Amino acid sequence: MHPLSDSPISRDGKTLILAMDHGLEHGPSDFEAVPETLDPETAFEIGTHPAVTAVAVQKGIAEQYYPSYEDDVNLLAKLNGTSNLWMGEPYSPKNCTVEYAIEELNADAVGYTVYSGSNHEPRMYEDFREIQETAHRNDLPVVMWSYPRGQGLKNDTKPEVIAYAARIALELGADVAKVKYPGSQEAMEWAVRAAGGTRVVMSGGSKVSDLEFLRSVEAVMNAGGTGLAVGRNVWQREDPTRLLDALEKVIYEGETADAAIEE
Amino acid sequence: MHPLSDSPISRDGKTLILAMDHGLEHGPSDFEAVPETLDPETAFEIGTHPAVTAVAVQKGIAEQYYPSYEDDVNLLAKLNGTSNLWMGEPYSPKNCTVEYAIEELNADAVGYTVYSGSNHEPRMYEDFREIQETAHRNDLPVVMWSYPRGQGLKNDTKPEVIAYAARIALELGADVAKVKYPGSQEAMEWAVRAAGGTRVVMSGGSKVSDLEFLRSVEAVMNAGGTGLAVGRNVWQREDPTRLLDALEKVIYEGETADAAIEE
Amino acid sequence: MHPLSDSPISRDGKTLILAMDHGLEHGPSDFEAVPETLDPETAFEIGTHPAVTAVAVQKGIAEQYYPSYEDDVNLLAKLNGTSNLWMGEPYSPKNCTVEYAIEELNADAVGYTVYSGSNHEPRMYEDFREIQETAHRNDLPVVMWSYPRGQGLKNDTKPEVIAYAARIALELGADVAKVKYPGSQEAMEWAVRAAGGTRVVMSGGSKVSDLEFLRSVEAVMNAGGTGLAVGRNVWQREDPTRLLDALEKVIYEGETADAAIEE
Amino acid sequence: MHPLSDSPISRDGKTLILAMDHGLEHGPSDFEAVPETLDPETAFEIGTHPAVTAVAVQKGIAEQYYPSYEDDVNLLAKLNGTSNLWMGEPYSPKNCTVEYAIEELNADAVGYTVYSGSNHEPRMYEDFREIQETAHRNDLPVVMWSYPRGQGLKNDTKPEVIAYAARIALELGADVAKVKYPGSQEAMEWAVRAAGGTRVVMSGGSKVSDLEFLRSVEAVMNAGGTGLAVGRNVWQREDPTRLLDALEKVIYEGETADAAIEE
Amino acid sequence: MHPLSDSPISRDGKTLILAMDHGLEHGPSDFEAVPETLDPETAFEIGTHPAVTAVAVQKGIAEQYYPSYEDDVNLLAKLNGTSNLWMGEPYSPKNCTVEYAIEELNADAVGYTVYSGSNHEPRMYEDFREIQETAHRNDLPVVMWSYPRGQGLKNDTKPEVIAYAARIALELGADVAKVKYPGSQEAMEWAVRAAGGTRVVMSGGSKVSDLEFLRSVEAVMNAGGTGLAVGRNVWQREDPTRLLDALEKVIYEGETADAAIEE
Repeated sequence: MHPLSDSPISRDGKTLILAMDHGLEHGPSDFEAVPETLDPETAFEIGTHPAVTAVAVQKGIAEQYYPSYEDDVNLLAKLNGTSNLWMGEPYSPKNCTVEYAIEELNADAVGYTVYSGSNHEPRMYEDFREIQETAHRNDLPVVMWSYPRGQGLKNDTKPEVIAYAARIALELGADVAKVKYPGSQEAMEWAVRAAGGTRVVMSGGSKVSDLEFLRSVEAVMNAGGTGLAVGRNVWQREDPTRLLDALEKVIYEGETADAAIEE
Repeated sequence: MHPLSDSPISRDGKTLILAMDHGLEHGPSDFEAVPETLDPETAFEIGTHPAVTAVAVQKGIAEQYYPSYEDDVNLLAKLNGTSNLWMGEPYSPKNCTVEYAIEELNADAVGYTVYSGSNHEPRMYEDFREIQETAHRNDLPVVMWSYPRGQGLKNDTKPEVIAYAARIALELGADVAKVKYPGSQEAMEWAVRAAGGTRVVMSGGSKVSDLEFLRSVEAVMNAGGTGLAVGRNVWQREDPTRLLDALEKVIYEGETADAAIEE
Repeated sequence: MHPLSDSPISRDGKTLILAMDHGLEHGPSDFEAVPETLDPETAFEIGTHPAVTAVAVQKGIAEQYYPSYEDDVNLLAKLNGTSNLWMGEPYSPKNCTVEYAIEELNADAVGYTVYSGSNHEPRMYEDFREIQETAHRNDLPVVMWSYPRGQGLKNDTKPEVIAYAARIALELGADVAKVKYPGSQEAMEWAVRAAGGTRVVMSGGSKVSDLEFLRSVEAVMNAGGTGLAVGRNVWQREDPTRLLDALEKVIYEGETADAAIEE
Repeated sequence: MHPLSDSPISRDGKTLILAMDHGLEHGPSDFEAVPETLDPETAFEIGTHPAVTAVAVQKGIAEQYYPSYEDDVNLLAKLNGTSNLWMGEPYSPKNCTVEYAIEELNADAVGYTVYSGSNHEPRMYEDFREIQETAHRNDLPVVMWSYPRGQGLKNDTKPEVIAYAARIALELGADVAKVKYPGSQEAMEWAVRAAGGTRVVMSGGSKVSDLEFLRSVEAVMNAGGTGLAVGRNVWQREDPTRLLDALEKVIYEGETADAAIEE
Repeated sequence: MHPLSDSPISRDGKTLILAMDHGLEHGPSDFEAVPETLDPETAFEIGTHPAVTAVAVQKGIAEQYYPSYEDDVNLLAKLNGTSNLWMGEPYSPKNCTVEYAIEELNADAVGYTVYSGSNHEPRMYEDFREIQETAHRNDLPVVMWSYPRGQGLKNDTKPEVIAYAARIALELGADVAKVKYPGSQEAMEWAVRAAGGTRVVMSGGSKVSDLEFLRSVEAVMNAGGTGLAVGRNVWQREDPTRLLDALEKVIYEGETADAAIEE
């Protein structure tokens, strides 16, 4: 059985990851739209919604807040991360070891960002290798944030880049590839096929309208994707529950975006 | 219970750290105003004042002087540090391991400087990870000197930078964030909220008038801050005790700066 | 006895390695000619052909697909690899340790790319040393993808470069040198002599006509080569079995290319 | 008791280190004035003079020559060093581990050069940390050759630089700071005060007249210094014994330079 | 007793090392003059001549060919090496650990190239330290190929450079210094004196006439040298035995070059 399906961060073979590492990656300004979301407890509160199969946060937030939510929420420990204050070829340092995530954070899965295309790609692959081997030897699923980025390739969402990102996750041994939406269901199908047995989840990205967002999720599911990793598109809304209810229908019950949102 | 509150470097959940690593960071000239403070014993002598919950020094000073003060002073071992003699993107090397701080220095807590925004940010985050994990596995609180600094961001105290600095300390797993004063109580409130369960202490900075200094401390406490880490503003004064008495009132007894100084 | 001959990845002292790491090295576009080959299972399906003595894939593909083929296919775990998305002097990071290949992947042999001539040559030699020593201490044959590449030497297939590539594999302790075809049987003979007791296999390269390809294989065998490592020249064809049948005759039965293809 | 006083390399709390690592640092030309000093045995022969409390040499010389002198001479193993053949920001690599110095060389103390102010300062501080911690855990005194050097600061002997150098040795945990002579007794006093409990010895430097040299030593002792580390000023003389006799009087018996040389 | 004299790679305190790592360092073209020497067995065949006290080869050649010659030839495992295909400041990576040389190759001694004067000198000194300490802890003699090289100093054979090279070998703990011929017996004497107890052998260099070569060897022996490390000057000749017979007389029997060659 696939490590993801066999793990608590999956529901009927599907997954919805709520990510909240924006305080590190983007800074506190990301939370200004809904100021109370600056409270890290927000992630775990939203994470109790039945549609959410895992909450992805950095070590420090897990360490302080997860103990109160261990019965209700699954933890995906995001092991690397960086601020947006510096410049240079993309790289994301390891802020938490797998051993610490298991023993001290009680993590159910681990996540790691890899910037293929960066001049630091070799170093990131070697960092990832260590993470991947330790996690698998401990029966923990590994989610790769697979984001090709670097000189001449910044933020690229072309179909061949996203398919490549998904394939890299497979070849390097990730169980789940978190990739950006390549713009169409057809392009997503290519990525899903390229990923082989590695499950593909769409990365939520910056906030768009409810319907637009749900339609891209529907396309991902139709393309054979496994689900979604979402952040701002949930917690930057005044009422996250309403969107999570709709996501639950699209991801787990196979409803269309239009039907799910109208209810 | 929060690691800080549970530790000897806290008093009623508040903390006043006396820092004296200026001999390494700035050189002996920093002590010229009050020449006898060049004697490293000064830090521990001042540290016996009941307002002080911890003395922060480098390894060598701890090794030679702390044994005589272990009954009266709590030691916050500052684990990294650098001279001001070189140039280049900010980085601060590790001069002491956590194991050495525990076993040979008898430290009650450890401190580490992180320059987010430097091109060496990734290396510093990885250094910090090792410190943080070893300290927490040994039940030692970790204080992050969280100082964004680097190309295009030198010595920045803008509200969003200080709030970001506080958030980084939280996300990377520090128990206490030592940040510069962002100029207003409102800005400090943002930093305190961004830090979540991580306690925020104001970094004292260069010497200002008694009243001006105490008012900024009062603002920090009103903003929900946990206290202060102070150096030159105490030991560059002829009579440190008078200021410490006033600080004690502002930090632990909730007096205003004006009331505390007038007594 | 030579480690290769003694290993499962050899048949009558000859070897035919089917390589399928193009998803990582070149991206999914490499599979567009025959879209169903994007399915990683392709490598193992083709690998069941009796002509194939080993299938060379990256860790992730081995981890997910090899368990179903362990009885029928020998695994050559390719331990390093990189995407083609970045620029700079060639380097290929280690994505899998020898220990993991043995214990978790059940590998019969390991492979490693070395770009002599790159400014990163020293780092690659040191990486290779660790691989080689661990593999030999565990009685695992080591195949070096020996590809001189770098400033002023990109993709060079001159006879002296290929002979040098083969010699480097010998001197650094590889059991098998995988080198590009140097253009003639005579040049290949030089490479085979330079490699001493290290076996030489030709690297298949980009797709050419059946006959042209088989003639180069025939020249390699006549030159004293041990066989072939092939990828696109097999799985980019509509009917890989037909070519594998012919390769079997040329490599193991000593037939000429013309005779083998006409049958 | 201070680690130095407690160690064999001290006599009445004072110390005179004879350094002979010039063959590595400067090359054999340094010995041309008195050619027979090229013989490494010279260092140990001179080291038998009762004024000398330790001989500082590199690993290879200790390994070959010290066994014959272990009863008569104390060994200060100089653990790092570099040739003067290359250019670039100053750095001095570790040529000997503390463990090897203890177990194989039978060292009584260890020495390490740190170039604060170099762009490689962070790396040297981290190297020094490892040395310092291992030495202290094994009860071995550590002497820091504390030489600020680098872009815009080469060979600087300004009072504030020397005081800074002495302070750095204290803060990083050295037992003895070896610093250049800052030009006056007053400046040396500053350095001695800045060093706190770390003992300060003057670095001999290039050869000057007997009286000039002895007067600087006298000034160092009057300033509260602990002694001297000397090389060329002893062994580049035709009759080292005469100068050592005078040094003995100045360092251990409190005589003036003029009185000591006239006898 | 000196580690060299005590070791199998010495005969009457003298040594003649046959080096054959040119396939890695220069490429197969080096063997074109006498094509059959491309066969790595050549080194060991020549090594059975009684004048030869050790054969120096890279790991891979030792691993494949030395098992058949262990009774007749002593192995000097050359632990680092690099191709001539890349550019940049000289550096030579470690291709074999001392442990592997002892346990898997059955080596009698180890050799290591150090390029003092390169910008990578510090890294090479640190690499050498590890080699040297492990070898000596296992009672294995260490030969340093001591070749100052780098910006502004390429291939320098000036007397002071060669004397410096010999001294560096001593100070860093080598038992034998392999240095280039400095052009005269007097210059070689300086190098021998600078090396102290470290034995000095001349590096053979590119091919010259028999007599010219033997005269330089005679000068080395007269200068107090310990012998010779030779490669191309032996195996690039049609009849290596004739030259080895003459070398035996010059090195072990004290004959002049002219007398030795005329017999």
